Amino acid sequence: MKTQYYVASSLDGFIADRENRIDWLMEFGMEEFSADYAAFIENIGVIVMGSRTYEFLLGEGLAEWPYAGQMCWVLTSRELPRIEGADIRFARGDITDLHREWAAAARDLGKDIWIVGGGDVAAQVYDAGLLDELLITIMPVVLGAGAPLLPTAANSPVFEVVETHAFSGGALGATYRTRR
Amino acid sequence: MKTQYYVASSLDGFIADRENRIDWLMEFGMEEFSADYAAFIENIGVIVMGSRTYEFLLGEGLAEWPYAGQMCWVLTSRELPRIEGADIRFARGDITDLHREWAAAARDLGKDIWIVGGGDVAAQVYDAGLLDELLITIMPVVLGAGAPLLPTAANSPVFEVVETHAFSGGALGATYRTRR
Repeated sequence: MKTQYYVASSLDGFIADRENRIDWLMEFGMEEFSADYAAFIENIGVIVMGSRTYEFLLGEGLAEWPYAGQMCWVLTSRELPRIEGADIRFARGDITDLHREWAAAARDLGKDIWIVGGGDVAAQVYDAGLLDELLITIMPVVLGAGAPLLPTAANSPVFEVVETHAFSGGALGATYRTRR
Repeated sequence: MKTQYYVASSLDGFIADRENRIDWLMEFGMEEFSADYAAFIENIGVIVMGSRTYEFLLGEGLAEWPYAGQMCWVLTSRELPRIEGADIRFARGDITDLHREWAAAARDLGKDIWIVGGGDVAAQVYDAGLLDELLITIMPVVLGAGAPLLPTAANSPVFEVVETHAFSGGALGATYRTRR
């Protein structure tokens, strides 16, 4: 069971632009990444996201909930709308306690945990020493400012690189393992 | 004649940490990158840096000036110490006018221009439409905060990827060409 942060970033480390939008990402077209995503999501039993990521998905007017095969935890201190037919649990509290629940659920399923985002949620998990892997797709674009990839509290230890690959359109994919 | 920004960055887009230090970079050891650097610097006739980068180099107590083979422009509005035996010109003013001078000198030498940094100098060159290539070495480390890679004024157009390569220690190298 692994806890993974799978995310697309600009070259300069932003996951959303200064208006908190991802139009710049969508412009690349997602076809090229669909096999990579399919291989990834197949092993995911539990997903975790912050309230703003959840609200972003709500605002997208999705025809269907894209994570029907996963348990979804949304970290929030607010009341948020539910989505018909989606397995969503709203939660707040200590990240280590919460992670124990996510891990138990993922183990029961024989699958992994995906920290969807935003960066602040991933940073909380990272800072608590609970992140196993960072799977990043680095897009060939500079945003200059925006929502940071992983706003951790301190310089991190070095990551170990597990694997890297180049997409034909210029994106770079890399899997990093955190050192404990 | 090309104007290139050749730089090492953390995974999350910082070129120096929150204390403006590069210890995190030096920890990787530079041997692995020496061939890459040697191939790069061979084609550089003119280097350009901001005053803080210059002062950083001064503070390093270098046994010898590392850019003896290049003309060096330092962008500054302050009086700064000179270095014995180094070809250094202090300058201030409009970046497009200055770039005309750098380009003329580089062309005379049959070589290219290296924007050494910091990110703000590279961003000025980029925003003026004068940056041809970004040559980045992405180190397997997250800093969380620090000096940004390329703090441009606006979302940039997409870069074209010229070439990518993986270093054995986990760094990723990539050359990007700006689109005009």
